[in-house]
Amino acid sequence: MPENVARKLIAAHLESGEMSPGEEIGIRIDQTLTQDATGTLVMQELEALGLERAQTEVSVQYVDHNLLQTDQKNAEDHEYLRTACERYGLWFSKAGNGVSHPTHMQRFGIPGKTMVGSDSHTPAAGSLGMLAIGVGGLEVALAIAGRPLNIRMPEIWGVRLEGALPEWCSAKDVILEMLRRHGVKGGVGRIIEYHGPGLANLTAMDRHVIANMGAELGATTTVFPADEAVRAFLRGEQREDDFVELLADDGAGYDADEFIDLSQIEPLIAKPSSPGNVVPVREVAGTDIAQVVIGSSANPGLRDFAIAAAMVEGRQTSPEVSFDVNPTSRQILSDLMTMGAATQLVVAGARIHQAGCMGCIGMGQAPATGRNSLRTMPRNFPGRSGTKEDAVWLCSPETAAASALVGEIIDPRDWAEKEGQAYPELRLPENSSVNTAMLVPPLEPAAAREVTPVKGPNISRLPELDPLPDALSAPVLLVTGDDISTDEISPAGARALPFRSNIPKLAEFSFTQIDETYPQRALEQRDSGGAHVIVGGENYGQGSSREHAAIAPRYLGLRAVIAKSYARIHWQNLANFGVLALEFDDPADYDAIGAGDVLEFEGLRSAIADGDAVTVRNATKDAAFTARHRLSERQVADVLAGGIIPRLAEA
Amino acid sequence: MPENVARKLIAAHLESGEMSPGEEIGIRIDQTLTQDATGTLVMQELEALGLERAQTEVSVQYVDHNLLQTDQKNAEDHEYLRTACERYGLWFSKAGNGVSHPTHMQRFGIPGKTMVGSDSHTPAAGSLGMLAIGVGGLEVALAIAGRPLNIRMPEIWGVRLEGALPEWCSAKDVILEMLRRHGVKGGVGRIIEYHGPGLANLTAMDRHVIANMGAELGATTTVFPADEAVRAFLRGEQREDDFVELLADDGAGYDADEFIDLSQIEPLIAKPSSPGNVVPVREVAGTDIAQVVIGSSANPGLRDFAIAAAMVEGRQTSPEVSFDVNPTSRQILSDLMTMGAATQLVVAGARIHQAGCMGCIGMGQAPATGRNSLRTMPRNFPGRSGTKEDAVWLCSPETAAASALVGEIIDPRDWAEKEGQAYPELRLPENSSVNTAMLVPPLEPAAAREVTPVKGPNISRLPELDPLPDALSAPVLLVTGDDISTDEISPAGARALPFRSNIPKLAEFSFTQIDETYPQRALEQRDSGGAHVIVGGENYGQGSSREHAAIAPRYLGLRAVIAKSYARIHWQNLANFGVLALEFDDPADYDAIGAGDVLEFEGLRSAIADGDAVTVRNATKDAAFTARHRLSERQVADVLAGGIIPRLAEA
Repeated sequence: MPENVARKLIAAHLESGEMSPGEEIGIRIDQTLTQDATGTLVMQELEALGLERAQTEVSVQYVDHNLLQTDQKNAEDHEYLRTACERYGLWFSKAGNGVSHPTHMQRFGIPGKTMVGSDSHTPAAGSLGMLAIGVGGLEVALAIAGRPLNIRMPEIWGVRLEGALPEWCSAKDVILEMLRRHGVKGGVGRIIEYHGPGLANLTAMDRHVIANMGAELGATTTVFPADEAVRAFLRGEQREDDFVELLADDGAGYDADEFIDLSQIEPLIAKPSSPGNVVPVREVAGTDIAQVVIGSSANPGLRDFAIAAAMVEGRQTSPEVSFDVNPTSRQILSDLMTMGAATQLVVAGARIHQAGCMGCIGMGQAPATGRNSLRTMPRNFPGRSGTKEDAVWLCSPETAAASALVGEIIDPRDWAEKEGQAYPELRLPENSSVNTAMLVPPLEPAAAREVTPVKGPNISRLPELDPLPDALSAPVLLVTGDDISTDEISPAGARALPFRSNIPKLAEFSFTQIDETYPQRALEQRDSGGAHVIVGGENYGQGSSREHAAIAPRYLGLRAVIAKSYARIHWQNLANFGVLALEFDDPADYDAIGAGDVLEFEGLRSAIADGDAVTVRNATKDAAFTARHRLSERQVADVLAGGIIPRLAEA
Repeated sequence: MPENVARKLIAAHLESGEMSPGEEIGIRIDQTLTQDATGTLVMQELEALGLERAQTEVSVQYVDHNLLQTDQKNAEDHEYLRTACERYGLWFSKAGNGVSHPTHMQRFGIPGKTMVGSDSHTPAAGSLGMLAIGVGGLEVALAIAGRPLNIRMPEIWGVRLEGALPEWCSAKDVILEMLRRHGVKGGVGRIIEYHGPGLANLTAMDRHVIANMGAELGATTTVFPADEAVRAFLRGEQREDDFVELLADDGAGYDADEFIDLSQIEPLIAKPSSPGNVVPVREVAGTDIAQVVIGSSANPGLRDFAIAAAMVEGRQTSPEVSFDVNPTSRQILSDLMTMGAATQLVVAGARIHQAGCMGCIGMGQAPATGRNSLRTMPRNFPGRSGTKEDAVWLCSPETAAASALVGEIIDPRDWAEKEGQAYPELRLPENSSVNTAMLVPPLEPAAAREVTPVKGPNISRLPELDPLPDALSAPVLLVTGDDISTDEISPAGARALPFRSNIPKLAEFSFTQIDETYPQRALEQRDSGGAHVIVGGENYGQGSSREHAAIAPRYLGLRAVIAKSYARIHWQNLANFGVLALEFDDPADYDAIGAGDVLEFEGLRSAIADGDAVTVRNATKDAAFTARHRLSERQVADVLAGGIIPRLAEA
């Protein structure tokens, strides 16, 4: 039977289960990727697992998030990561080397391989024909230890591309079109696979843009075939030997089908404050802006900066606009400099920042309250910029550059017409300026064993996790709306991120974007001996992969969430850390629960183990409703034990 | 009588007083410079003074300190500064344009002019033959309003230079030699004037290095003649028309004399944690380092980056070292890019940050606790880096670059010998890539009157200041040691700086580097109706010009300081904000005072007005001692009124 790329990748790595959508499968993992904001916990988990040495083909630890170093904590985390990599046999990519996803693609990505990463944009590696999935840190740790990844077999969603993009439109507009059509839940339970003749008009780095931001559709991952475009990319990176062709068979089918005529794409923009809030740029043209930011893993390629540079060359950005440029990596920055593009950006008014995620993760570049900020980034969840009442828009480099010049949102086609500017022909170098000197390779095993990772005072231990009780009487401390993101559950940004290695301190930031009193109320409840419950709406926990969004509330006493539905990674993280995630049998029951209501559960362990509906009594309202979990047998064992780590300790 | 340059500058601007050392003189001010960390208060002071329009020839507001934007506060400050400049007729240099001192030198500096700046490194403009003095923000505001600057006439300290610097030594080693000889109090009450045949071997930007860091000697300012080197500099900046020759007369004398044979200079380094703690680099060679930072107004020139780039070209910095590069300005960064030097730095492992002060003011780049950080910056006061227990060293770009490659401190001569590296011949462009597009000129008066400065929620008002009481009974809340810097009194850094516009919030950081309980104890004392006193040692308040170090403790109830001696700018700031600064008649009395002692003052107002010794009774120890002020008549009026602003309001 002719097969698509996604199923081929899974079949080649299948260790357990049936490849039927919804069934739990186990997949062998070849590579892992961690970044510093999640990696410090991964290293602590490797320690808790008693790992001797990484069992993967390649595991790389990047430092790209916590780069501001406003006090000693970031530098101490970097030192811990560097020495833990030495101990466990991982590659270490120093601060300043660049953003994990594009850097991994350039230096380590190999078609046909599987990868997990403790970052939700890990699917970007799908651009090379890899199966790359964002997961919680603990699952990365288990993969590093040689264990398979367990997921539910997704549906494969074939997106057929035809035609070529018009001038002034680029890959970002393609993924924005997908988000315009399907919103932030459109990809849940699916792998998106792009195919068709339109692919020939997208470079590997264009595909990176689409695969990266596919995370915003809620998809498990995105895959592209490994075709001549991938070969050309690897040749440019001086790694053509790593190329392996991986194509869908003729006549391969998909569980669902979608069609995009690239020639019909127009410049799109996601309005504040959701990546799913997409409209044509022309619909919001004329809106004043105070900031434009170019960069991040969603528009990381040399091309994305070069087109902006070509547009601003010989012009000046508006005096009211801060024009911020975040180079992707040391390699891309040096290529931009050699090309002259970096100079064009600076001369036109850019603030060139150090290579890294920067404003994308709220590490600086926070805009003024309520002032519009246009970004080429993948996310604009409320407060993610670092400004509580922010107004962040997501768009292509073309739209961003034109708007920076004008001082208001403008469709780049309209800007070009006004300026009499022809679409720039970019002359990109055929070969990247490959420089691997700053990627520190793993130590030899004998030397590695001699290393003791350096733990500064900011590195805590993982909290103790006790088993799920059989009966529970717990107040609802929060009732949230739909689409709550992990940015709202455990914020990133310059204040919170430095505590990513320090769960007790980090916990103080939990849910503060929604309710500043939550951490204190939860602590009081916990310290008086009680657990608590959170009630959520649809797509609870969308966004980033950070397991901190499970661990920190768990540390504060969260024992169960009852929601209408969950985003995949967070749902898995809750199980990994022993938080019971239930879904309402009848979503209408959501409306009957108020903050402060006390919920009672009895015979919980047997009900969970048997997969039965759980009856929840609302003692405050004197009512009852039912809810159920969708956990696999393996996950049930995790939740009953209090999490994966205590379950493995039991075994 | 033949005159030196400093006296010529003063004489040409003298508005009142006699030019005898120690006498108060008034000087007309042609230019002002403010930066964002002090400028927001200056703008509030202009408002309090009811200013209609700037009366100076040129006043420029720079944004170079608060660049990280970890939340909305910085961006709101920048917006306030931009619109306040529109209102009051100032130039506005946007975030990203560059560090104030070198940018001002390149774009606005004119030989023979006077300038005050609310930044202690303002003397850097002395490199062009200007008389440039760092003062508190309120004095800048008064200068903008057209009032003269009042200071005590300093002694002129002539430093004769002969010979030329050896290879691998540069201007930074010259000022470090001055600090090695004389320490951080060596220049108090003096203007340093360099003269002699050695000057011919120092470019204007070399002189900037020496004049800038002359602030660390405690000098009032530093001046150089405006000679052919200055003409060449202005020609390179396309401003040769602004050149005015200003030379010392043949046979001009000085109040004190010093001699430096440049050919005898060797690479020097200031050890933690004082710029005065200078030793030869060879004495500390082999010390492990974790960070090297190049940049800041103390080594701002194209040459300083180009020499580092030439040294690291084709090499890699040590994997354990974070090699951070802070470009001085948009102009210098684009020149570095055009030359290829920026690429050399990046390829060798540099993290290139946005143009600005950055780590020099603790805005990021904080090292790990106790890890050695080598910097080309001017200051290494404890905690200034952002890390409480830091270990910061100050050196030349040559020493910094060599050490970054080796991973330990090394004399660049020894590094060159090991490497067989000849001293690089730098080919710098004759002309800078002048780009004035991002300097926003003043609005026309009619348009300016229509502007209302935009005050975000973080912009507070100046606190109310009441007159000095005649009797005071107040506890000593702190007894400090010698050389307490304003970094310790009111810290900079990424946590505190965003509150520079918000005195009540900023006050919570006062003295926390020394005693974390001070702000709370002071507030409790204030709120129970009482003032308090601080007792200090020698050179109290050295370092930065920030008037916040006077205003914030004043807001918390500080009414008098009794110290052995004071640094000039802070002493003036105390008077400006109505804090009585007394000196012990007998320094030995310092030893008899303990923290918590209650001091009693009676008949204070008349004693101060008459210049009499003040008798202070130590009620706790049942003892008494005398102290006195060195205030001018004008300053006495200020202190009695509670500060300059209430005094002017009275008038």
